[in-house]
Amino acid sequence: LKGLTAYLDRYVGAEKYFCVTDETVAGLYLENLKGQLPLSDIYICSPGEAAKSFTIYEDICEKFLGQSMTRKSAIIALGGGVVGDMAGFVAATVLRGVKFVQIPTTLLAQVDSSVGGKTAINSKAGKNLIGAFYQPELVIADTHVLKTLPPRQIYAGYGEILKYALIDYPEFFEWLDKNADKVLRGEPAALSKAIRKSCEKKAEIVAADERESGQRALLNLGHTFAHALEKEAGYDGALLHGEAVLIGMMMAMEFSVDLGVCDPQDLQRLKAHYDRYDLMPDYKIKSDAETLLNVMAKDKKNIGGSIVFILLRGIGKAYVETSVSRNDAKEFLVKFLKAIQG
Amino acid sequence: LKGLTAYLDRYVGAEKYFCVTDETVAGLYLENLKGQLPLSDIYICSPGEAAKSFTIYEDICEKFLGQSMTRKSAIIALGGGVVGDMAGFVAATVLRGVKFVQIPTTLLAQVDSSVGGKTAINSKAGKNLIGAFYQPELVIADTHVLKTLPPRQIYAGYGEILKYALIDYPEFFEWLDKNADKVLRGEPAALSKAIRKSCEKKAEIVAADERESGQRALLNLGHTFAHALEKEAGYDGALLHGEAVLIGMMMAMEFSVDLGVCDPQDLQRLKAHYDRYDLMPDYKIKSDAETLLNVMAKDKKNIGGSIVFILLRGIGKAYVETSVSRNDAKEFLVKFLKAIQG
Repeated sequence: LKGLTAYLDRYVGAEKYFCVTDETVAGLYLENLKGQLPLSDIYICSPGEAAKSFTIYEDICEKFLGQSMTRKSAIIALGGGVVGDMAGFVAATVLRGVKFVQIPTTLLAQVDSSVGGKTAINSKAGKNLIGAFYQPELVIADTHVLKTLPPRQIYAGYGEILKYALIDYPEFFEWLDKNADKVLRGEPAALSKAIRKSCEKKAEIVAADERESGQRALLNLGHTFAHALEKEAGYDGALLHGEAVLIGMMMAMEFSVDLGVCDPQDLQRLKAHYDRYDLMPDYKIKSDAETLLNVMAKDKKNIGGSIVFILLRGIGKAYVETSVSRNDAKEFLVKFLKAIQG
Repeated sequence: LKGLTAYLDRYVGAEKYFCVTDETVAGLYLENLKGQLPLSDIYICSPGEAAKSFTIYEDICEKFLGQSMTRKSAIIALGGGVVGDMAGFVAATVLRGVKFVQIPTTLLAQVDSSVGGKTAINSKAGKNLIGAFYQPELVIADTHVLKTLPPRQIYAGYGEILKYALIDYPEFFEWLDKNADKVLRGEPAALSKAIRKSCEKKAEIVAADERESGQRALLNLGHTFAHALEKEAGYDGALLHGEAVLIGMMMAMEFSVDLGVCDPQDLQRLKAHYDRYDLMPDYKIKSDAETLLNVMAKDKKNIGGSIVFILLRGIGKAYVETSVSRNDAKEFLVKFLKAIQG
């Protein structure tokens, strides 16, 4: 966060700055921000997914408009993915769009949600069902702020880092396979490299397909399963998004092998990687196959009647599969759940 | 509305159609729509500006998502500007954007709000302060539906038609000056021509500047004054938007003459046009100059500290003026109010 104002002057140049953050992050970094920059108004949410509601959305819009926000204003999101998603949706829609700056304070947000321009709030029908594509003017990913992050959050963030390697970046997988311990314990050079590579990869995929009509769907590797697991876990911290993605990516790989599209050796390499760095989250799946399948069938990325899966032809070879039969999916889930639930 | 499904098949091709309308319009045209097209869900608002609230926005999103809306769905706005603005904002944000169709049922909406992609809801701080730029796939302006419109609504719509003539289309003014009576009494050929010319002109201006960084501001001719009048009137139908624009355009012209940028002969021509067709709304302005000025100072289109005025160097010669002094504006308002309030 050092030199913040120089970045803002260079890349944003707003007349006024407003800030959205949460109680936890405010306690750690808000004073730093206020010391560097006059803020016209600050909105502090409770931490957690519940903040992505219609009510908080309305509150923030009304509060900032009440403080004379103009089209030359900028909103700074200081926090994790929840704060970024919410503040971004406000920025996209208040006055039909003001400038937007992301200062992600979790590893997950630094390598995923702060890049790519997806903003959203939650609906009763599911997470992130209301939102906009809206790009920030500037994203500041400062590895220093990760020092205050609990280790579980680092592992969760690592899930999304690993995802980029699995999608189409086998050299990155090789590197992570040797250096994940340094990333996971926050060794600055390794951590910076992992974040930079992740952001570059995400930016490359998003730039080619901002509105998600094709290849951007690859970023959903592991997410079809992950969303169903998060739904059963209840978004209260029992299962972090990145943890769900770690489970989901392993499921995608195993399913790919079962369907005969992926060499079992690649699955073994992935399992060895998980084992070596202790990546599999300590979470017990409670639902049965049918329940998970019903949730997956409601994913907003599905096309027509069939569930869209991102599968792997190998490490670094993800692809979009739209023609999996419900039977095959169910058979896999039954087998997978039996193996882990015993 | 005849042949609706052929248009939808050709220009939209959604898997499911949802409809937003209001009670008045539903009573007149919803059965026609339902007879032609299976609708997955219908949301019927109360008529009037109050429907553009956060609460109704949330209600519509939740209702449609609850009826399994997908990204291949389309929302049809069947109604006036309020319905179009609201339904458009839902379409822009639900699932981060579904297809959108406008079937405007007022003259005002046919010549103005249905074209150009502005969608919005209202904030406590003012009208249309939350929204998105989002283009419809298709706009169906059927002059038959205008037959059920009260005459006041036709005059209000005419205000926006006249606006295009005043901005930069002097030949259109000549034509209106001769044919406004036919337009106002709904003579089909004249009405169609007026609507087509208006939509073409608006589309031309918007295409050159969708995000309103420059010339799109000209569409705000008369609106700086109009918004202040609408605010005092209270959005309950005492003063229709198009009526406020008719007053506001006359104010813009008189102010332009006072500032010495416009030939008084052009003002006389405009006054003669208003007199000939009885265009000046029967509305008494209650506020004093200072009150109006304070409201105008909060317009979201203002730049920095000064009020942005769209002024006229003559009929068909509108321009953006950002350097009017508050004193000059106040002096004009005092004079204008004195003249009409007696």
